[in-house]
Amino acid sequence: MAHDESRDEPEPGYTTRKEEHLRRLRRIEGQVRGLQRMIDSDQYCIDVLTQIAAATRALQSVSIVLLEQHLRHCVRQAVRDGEQVDERIQEATAAIARLVRS
Amino acid sequence: MAHDESRDEPEPGYTTRKEEHLRRLRRIEGQVRGLQRMIDSDQYCIDVLTQIAAATRALQSVSIVLLEQHLRHCVRQAVRDGEQVDERIQEATAAIARLVRS
Amino acid sequence: MAHDESRDEPEPGYTTRKEEHLRRLRRIEGQVRGLQRMIDSDQYCIDVLTQIAAATRALQSVSIVLLEQHLRHCVRQAVRDGEQVDERIQEATAAIARLVRS
Amino acid sequence: MAHDESRDEPEPGYTTRKEEHLRRLRRIEGQVRGLQRMIDSDQYCIDVLTQIAAATRALQSVSIVLLEQHLRHCVRQAVRDGEQVDERIQEATAAIARLVRS
Repeated sequence: MAHDESRDEPEPGYTTRKEEHLRRLRRIEGQVRGLQRMIDSDQYCIDVLTQIAAATRALQSVSIVLLEQHLRHCVRQAVRDGEQVDERIQEATAAIARLVRS
Repeated sequence: MAHDESRDEPEPGYTTRKEEHLRRLRRIEGQVRGLQRMIDSDQYCIDVLTQIAAATRALQSVSIVLLEQHLRHCVRQAVRDGEQVDERIQEATAAIARLVRS
Repeated sequence: MAHDESRDEPEPGYTTRKEEHLRRLRRIEGQVRGLQRMIDSDQYCIDVLTQIAAATRALQSVSIVLLEQHLRHCVRQAVRDGEQVDERIQEATAAIARLVRS
Repeated sequence: MAHDESRDEPEPGYTTRKEEHLRRLRRIEGQVRGLQRMIDSDQYCIDVLTQIAAATRALQSVSIVLLEQHLRHCVRQAVRDGEQVDERIQEATAAIARLVRS
């Protein structure tokens, strides 16, 4: 899972919007804590499910933005040095497939 | 969103597995905090996406278990007093549709 | 996959809206044939993907309606004879899980 | 929906695997016709839902392969002439978002 250093990538493509990602993830963390309070206080099941769907969509939104930044980054790298482009596209597609099926 | 009290439901169908749900949600909360650490330490984007897909699947698993318990509960209520069954099924189906599309 | 006859179910719960389901499925069949024409005439990839997403959503809509009718049917059966209710709910939930994850 | 000719793209990136895509789509068309026969002969609802989930996954697989070819194509174009890269990535990401949410 850890970043393979041999890929030699100084920093990921998403760093320019790091604060935005962290803010969104903190909000999602709050949603998950809210879900625990809902369960703990025996809230109505359908309302819990609605909140779970909202948290799921929020996670997907983060992943879409990260992915867009990653693709831009890959393309810039490809233009600059043409290295490992095929491998990168394959890897990004595998990540997209996991998102589509999750 | 709030539980309509006129439904007069003393407790939701999921209370028997409350501890299990809370344990799973605490684990998901941990995953979301882990995502913040990954972003904060500039982990590789594809690895972040893999973790987001894992958290999404974990949330979906919680919702599937909640839904099963809710459906059992609805059916038991229908058998006992036959009240509001159609409305309940419609409501559950709307929740399922939100999960399928999220 | 085949219907287990030992369940002794004279007809599924969806028969009252059979024509509607068939009409929707014929339209989806047309969408899938349209996709073949798009590929065959080298239409732009993003437009093909948009049409695939539309066909996928149309299939999901059919499954949501079928599921609602099935749940109503299960509940009616449960009220009438109380048989195999738990098994039915478990089976329906497994089907929902497949839809949520597909 | 039609391919915007001003984009000046001689042929989409997926043409090398056109036959494979057509073969997969013909199989999916067959699955959708099979669904109509299942409904028409009152097959058990859960079995119909299982087949719908299978057709949905098959459509998603086609879209993942198309998307991978499209991304490779975009990157090759970017390396060659650097044109409209940002617009293309944005467009591809919007298509991915539609797939993730469908």
